[in-house]
Amino acid sequence: MLRGLSRAGLGSIGSDERFIALAGEHGFQTVDIDAKGLIDRNGLEAARKLLADNNVTIGSIGLSVEWRQSEETFRAGLAKLAEDAAAAAALGCRSCCTYILPATDFKAAHFTVIATRRLRTCAQILGAYGIRLGLEFVGPHHLRTAWANPFLWTMHETLDWIDAIGEPNVGLLFDSYHWYTNGHTLADIEALTPDQIVHVHINDAPDLPVEEVLDNGRLYPGEGVIDLGGFLKALNAIGYKGSVTQEILTKEAPAASSEALLERSKAGFDKVYQAAGLA
Amino acid sequence: MLRGLSRAGLGSIGSDERFIALAGEHGFQTVDIDAKGLIDRNGLEAARKLLADNNVTIGSIGLSVEWRQSEETFRAGLAKLAEDAAAAAALGCRSCCTYILPATDFKAAHFTVIATRRLRTCAQILGAYGIRLGLEFVGPHHLRTAWANPFLWTMHETLDWIDAIGEPNVGLLFDSYHWYTNGHTLADIEALTPDQIVHVHINDAPDLPVEEVLDNGRLYPGEGVIDLGGFLKALNAIGYKGSVTQEILTKEAPAASSEALLERSKAGFDKVYQAAGLA
Amino acid sequence: MLRGLSRAGLGSIGSDERFIALAGEHGFQTVDIDAKGLIDRNGLEAARKLLADNNVTIGSIGLSVEWRQSEETFRAGLAKLAEDAAAAAALGCRSCCTYILPATDFKAAHFTVIATRRLRTCAQILGAYGIRLGLEFVGPHHLRTAWANPFLWTMHETLDWIDAIGEPNVGLLFDSYHWYTNGHTLADIEALTPDQIVHVHINDAPDLPVEEVLDNGRLYPGEGVIDLGGFLKALNAIGYKGSVTQEILTKEAPAASSEALLERSKAGFDKVYQAAGLA
Amino acid sequence: MLRGLSRAGLGSIGSDERFIALAGEHGFQTVDIDAKGLIDRNGLEAARKLLADNNVTIGSIGLSVEWRQSEETFRAGLAKLAEDAAAAAALGCRSCCTYILPATDFKAAHFTVIATRRLRTCAQILGAYGIRLGLEFVGPHHLRTAWANPFLWTMHETLDWIDAIGEPNVGLLFDSYHWYTNGHTLADIEALTPDQIVHVHINDAPDLPVEEVLDNGRLYPGEGVIDLGGFLKALNAIGYKGSVTQEILTKEAPAASSEALLERSKAGFDKVYQAAGLA
Repeated sequence: MLRGLSRAGLGSIGSDERFIALAGEHGFQTVDIDAKGLIDRNGLEAARKLLADNNVTIGSIGLSVEWRQSEETFRAGLAKLAEDAAAAAALGCRSCCTYILPATDFKAAHFTVIATRRLRTCAQILGAYGIRLGLEFVGPHHLRTAWANPFLWTMHETLDWIDAIGEPNVGLLFDSYHWYTNGHTLADIEALTPDQIVHVHINDAPDLPVEEVLDNGRLYPGEGVIDLGGFLKALNAIGYKGSVTQEILTKEAPAASSEALLERSKAGFDKVYQAAGLA
Repeated sequence: MLRGLSRAGLGSIGSDERFIALAGEHGFQTVDIDAKGLIDRNGLEAARKLLADNNVTIGSIGLSVEWRQSEETFRAGLAKLAEDAAAAAALGCRSCCTYILPATDFKAAHFTVIATRRLRTCAQILGAYGIRLGLEFVGPHHLRTAWANPFLWTMHETLDWIDAIGEPNVGLLFDSYHWYTNGHTLADIEALTPDQIVHVHINDAPDLPVEEVLDNGRLYPGEGVIDLGGFLKALNAIGYKGSVTQEILTKEAPAASSEALLERSKAGFDKVYQAAGLA
Repeated sequence: MLRGLSRAGLGSIGSDERFIALAGEHGFQTVDIDAKGLIDRNGLEAARKLLADNNVTIGSIGLSVEWRQSEETFRAGLAKLAEDAAAAAALGCRSCCTYILPATDFKAAHFTVIATRRLRTCAQILGAYGIRLGLEFVGPHHLRTAWANPFLWTMHETLDWIDAIGEPNVGLLFDSYHWYTNGHTLADIEALTPDQIVHVHINDAPDLPVEEVLDNGRLYPGEGVIDLGGFLKALNAIGYKGSVTQEILTKEAPAASSEALLERSKAGFDKVYQAAGLA
Repeated sequence: MLRGLSRAGLGSIGSDERFIALAGEHGFQTVDIDAKGLIDRNGLEAARKLLADNNVTIGSIGLSVEWRQSEETFRAGLAKLAEDAAAAAALGCRSCCTYILPATDFKAAHFTVIATRRLRTCAQILGAYGIRLGLEFVGPHHLRTAWANPFLWTMHETLDWIDAIGEPNVGLLFDSYHWYTNGHTLADIEALTPDQIVHVHINDAPDLPVEEVLDNGRLYPGEGVIDLGGFLKALNAIGYKGSVTQEILTKEAPAASSEALLERSKAGFDKVYQAAGLA
């Protein structure tokens, strides 16, 4: 399993080019960035060289299509999605991810059928380029009532949704924070096959009652109460070989320098990989 | 458009064999019955002859699979669905229909994804035999709150669901009663293509505020306030050529003899087809 | 059924803008042009106005994706396909068509599976914009051996392929010339439902043995031996309401002026529509 | 990876019940048998107990649907397929396999589209029960010309076909004999993900020029020239955890007793698992 970083939790790290260099320097193997932007700015060959020189690959791109609002907005994003997918494929990245808010102001059943169709279209376009679509279920309890109607938030609901979408290249973005806040278990991970997981996020949670854990109250790996050793061990046991990417969402931006935050992140990964018997 | 009958509204009409004979005698062209049962009791050749001798075909079979409850129950019905479809195809019937209750006690979003996948499977099995699946949206307002959570009830929601199901052989069961109770218009019909309609039901409604119209308070065609002439004219204009089938759901069974009810039904069809300029 | 024109058979008619104007002047209702190009040159509002002022709509756009060669070439066209589809939808066009050569230098079975997947992807992208994909089977016998291995060329084979592609928005581009050179009958048309036809081409054939009829030896409607009256009558009877578009492929460009060729085309349409009882 | 047996290569081993007992006795973990037959003869609970008592599970059932001949024959098998799948699921088996002959007397392109649609339908029915469909490519050269037209026989062609079928639950039945006779490499295995493999067959080949190796000239594992150690090592490295099932097809039935053949099979597995570093 590859050690990965997103920009969340690294402060003002600057350009993606600098992010790549610093990630590599600190022993991280993947970064979540915009593949198309990297190529647009550098050209394909230089973008490839930049990644290779820093021993870094792209863990996942984000789904740029807005699939939660109007049909017009949705359609307007599809041509760019094809370009995003082409760029990701050209740089060897095979994952594209989006998150699922656990509530909606739309009528739930109607929103579900529309979103099912739209995410299927996104998966089909990504699939033409060999890219997989990862859906991130979101566990913190406060978000379940942040909009009028409950939507989907557990791993099992999301797997059912993936079945409804019905494309071979759709799976989970599996985030330890959402696994924890849902009260899911190690057995829930062990029941998965690796192809059901497109991407993994790793975050830690404060020592609070689980219902009070906030989505933007995340801690660096190893600094909180989630059993991240067990989490990683279970993922490794089922054969997951992809990226495990840190994404520290916090209410206020961290004050330390990016270099300090990278050190802190590295120390966190070392700790939890060791706890998993993987270091 | 073919004049069709279901058993609902015809009293104690007896066996399907008698139903077929009486439907033919009264000038109806289709009946909604269980194709497999007809073959099981009579053999394929005799079943075909019975229909042919009475100038009657099967308008639609009903979906025998229980797709609203447990996964176990759902799966248990799939082998019979294949047999139902084979029987229907052998008798020249190309439609199979089910209805959608407008509310559910399950969490709406989760029920939607499960039902999407299950109805897709049903459509796929039916499609292997050249049979289409018709989904009936259900309009009466009182049913929208008869279970805990709102589901889908309008034509437009149902068309969106058909898109989410994503199989080429799924369309609407279009019932005048549900069109009326939803407040849909002639323009809503005129915006359809005929392949979006798998089957049509015809019923009339009492002169009540539309919010008070009950699902089991239906009238024979021409005896109520629905613009059935306009309804049929619009269906004909878009090129619909299938069955228009009466299905009179009432709180209490009608007291008259089946023969009298057939006469009444025939008179109703004559009246509304004439109003549509189709008689 | 709408009277439609492509540029093939109209000589040096100039820009699409002039084509639209001349088509409208001669009473044609649709033109097959590149929707995206029209918008790119004129802007969306002016493009809409140009069509409306000339009482012309777009019959179909052509599929710009190269689905017959390398995977790289295929993928490179998908972003533009989304843009083409968006442009077509913005101008009210709902059809996009491609043709199927009846032989291939690739191994037939392998080419079939690759092309099935690629055309499905094209259909999925088009479907996101409400556009249908029409597949044109190609009948002239000489093309069946023009490449090493036989592929698909009959209506029935193409319908089977559409089933294999499996998307709801795929149907036939039905060309009278290919219907004729395949020896298909009026009964073959009458067995279709209108949703199986995305677009229609009309052409006439010289009085030669059918095996000797060349793909680029086409005549204007009414000038040859094809029963175009029967052809149109059958299409109308099944409920087809779309465009019937002339596409005169000839070995040498016609010598007459575009105005004269438009007159000739109009006379041909008048003759065959009259023969069909539709004028 | 589980050590598995089919009946092929075990002589007159008698009933499936005896087969299960003897497989267990000789340390094999899976058997390929007809799940429905086992339940029909024993009842579900006794069938489960029989397997459990012998520490054996079912590796894969065979696809009972005839998908290569007439549409009528195909459809006639679908109800039984649902029953087969239900039986397999009830016994914990998640695989169903069929083989692909590398040539066909049908026109190749047309057969391909029909078979694509039919295998998709089979996959959809199996998928409703959580069962995967494995497609076995067949490598021996003599079969490529045993029928009039070439079809598909390599791993890569078959993966392309799986993409064309387009269902999430379709993958390869990967047989060492077909891997070898196709001249595929260890790198070809290493490029796969485990979810692309539904089932594995293991067989060895005589020391002949690869073009002369016959489909029914197979040897027990470790008795021939295939690098089965490398084969197993590569499968293990990519994370395949399913069954590796022997299937010795020979021109003449082996003369030895089933017990002796089981010993011979066990010795073969011991040898090649050891060569793979897995014993």
